[in-house]
Amino acid sequence: MKRQKLFREINADLKKVEKELDKFLNVDDPMFSQTCLYLLQAGGKRLRPSFTLLAGKFFDYRFEKLLPVTMAVELIHMATLIHDDVVDASLTRRGRPTLTAGWGNTVSMATGDYLLAKALELIVKIDNPAVSSILADVCIEMCQGEIQQIKSSYDTTQTLKQYLYRIQRKTALLIGLCCKLGAKVSNANPRQIWLMSKYGNYLGLAFQIVDDILDITANPKELGKPVGGDIRQGIITLPMIFALKDSSQKERLKDLLGRKTKTDAEVAEAIQLIIQAGGIDKSRKIVEQYIDKAKANLQELPDVPAKDALIELANYMGERSY
Amino acid sequence: MKRQKLFREINADLKKVEKELDKFLNVDDPMFSQTCLYLLQAGGKRLRPSFTLLAGKFFDYRFEKLLPVTMAVELIHMATLIHDDVVDASLTRRGRPTLTAGWGNTVSMATGDYLLAKALELIVKIDNPAVSSILADVCIEMCQGEIQQIKSSYDTTQTLKQYLYRIQRKTALLIGLCCKLGAKVSNANPRQIWLMSKYGNYLGLAFQIVDDILDITANPKELGKPVGGDIRQGIITLPMIFALKDSSQKERLKDLLGRKTKTDAEVAEAIQLIIQAGGIDKSRKIVEQYIDKAKANLQELPDVPAKDALIELANYMGERSY
Repeated sequence: MKRQKLFREINADLKKVEKELDKFLNVDDPMFSQTCLYLLQAGGKRLRPSFTLLAGKFFDYRFEKLLPVTMAVELIHMATLIHDDVVDASLTRRGRPTLTAGWGNTVSMATGDYLLAKALELIVKIDNPAVSSILADVCIEMCQGEIQQIKSSYDTTQTLKQYLYRIQRKTALLIGLCCKLGAKVSNANPRQIWLMSKYGNYLGLAFQIVDDILDITANPKELGKPVGGDIRQGIITLPMIFALKDSSQKERLKDLLGRKTKTDAEVAEAIQLIIQAGGIDKSRKIVEQYIDKAKANLQELPDVPAKDALIELANYMGERSY
Repeated sequence: MKRQKLFREINADLKKVEKELDKFLNVDDPMFSQTCLYLLQAGGKRLRPSFTLLAGKFFDYRFEKLLPVTMAVELIHMATLIHDDVVDASLTRRGRPTLTAGWGNTVSMATGDYLLAKALELIVKIDNPAVSSILADVCIEMCQGEIQQIKSSYDTTQTLKQYLYRIQRKTALLIGLCCKLGAKVSNANPRQIWLMSKYGNYLGLAFQIVDDILDITANPKELGKPVGGDIRQGIITLPMIFALKDSSQKERLKDLLGRKTKTDAEVAEAIQLIIQAGGIDKSRKIVEQYIDKAKANLQELPDVPAKDALIELANYMGERSY
């Protein structure tokens, strides 16, 4: 539906990215072809390649130069999803069984490693040392976000600042980078690259907060996985941080969120307490602020059709949280 | 003991590699610094950097050009060890608790990813696209070896050819590559690079077969982990393949090795059957053949002191299996 319209500018090229990814992952090994095909077919929005292509559309757009970047960022993203599912022992994602559920942890870990290695293959072939280097750095930072998340599990004393630091690395950095590299590869000037990067970064923060909201409020069918996953896994998200501060039953909430094992009833109770304390509403306000900041960075950039798409994407992000 | 003598040629530079690795892994994140330091201190023989440096000594040796290669191969090796330990749920390695045992699977997986990302950081900075590309390829092939191992678990019908294909990718390729890159970076000619690569590859095969022998025959204290680990995990190694063919009780052995769970008594019985069937002796003969092939590739190369070290290393590999 919306995707068609949003991505009108890049739809044909996005299909080419899809096809190239398919080809790229379908050669070496029958087992990996199976698992990777499963992952590719599970779909996802190909949000990261879209950002790169749309950012490129503002400037000197050359698909063949953007292609390896779009593929590398999507492979990095896919690899982190799989390893996250292994770590979280997630059984469903996007409404389908995860790789972990179908093939087990060992195959999943190996597939994640394989996707990272394939990303590396692309990255070293990119004929632009600065771009390669930026992509290598983002992998390191994403691992740091991952470890940050592990370290802060079940820690109900964590601050807003710690949360933002974590999602910056876990999500926002890569989305910011997708926009940045789309501009950089398309010969934007430094100021334009910076603005595009800021747009993506703020949108990435908004995106992750929306995900964290939906993990609490969504219809499980629409979410494609059970609600309350973060609560079960001890990942303390923004709505929880607000609720831990404002709830009239904050000791009870603290106790619930800090427990290593929780019954379904306890998860449901925690969700109620978070909503009652206004944790969701407050988080939505933050989302709106980040979306506004994201859009503000676009103002100075050329008025091309892709700009409307990036604005619509930002607005869509806000609507998703309801 | 022996290491001092074997590595006389490169000992000072090997210490520098160690120091640089330490520095390189000790900057970004307190948690990763801890886990990585633990891994570095657990030691290991730094065999892969040694091969690269020794191979370099045959030609135009420049330490500063070899350094990033030695660090990258060691990081790749460390990352695969950690992910292997997660997959195998190994609790000890080199006589110390594994990272997995001490920090859990999540931290271990993240640390493995982080080491790969740090290797990537080095690889993209190497000012030689061919070298970067070779390093990227080896990561892919190693993942394929990993998946091959997973796929063939508990499969008692696997052939010698399948076994060799697997250890080629899992172990020999990287060791061959260490030798190859040491020569390549030091301006060896194509024939010399090829010979050095063959040396490393044959030695890598011998090395893995010795490991597989020791997993059955060693003193657990010397091994630094319990014996029979492969048997427990359903990894069918060369001594088992020989024994499955030759044992007078091959049906019993097949039944034992194919079981997903085994008692300690069953593991001990399997070990006895493998030894009785001559699986160990036959495997040692193969090791000797590979060591001879490895050394034969050195003949044509310049007679430098490092050549003696490589020959001694090959001989030492053979002695290790007794």
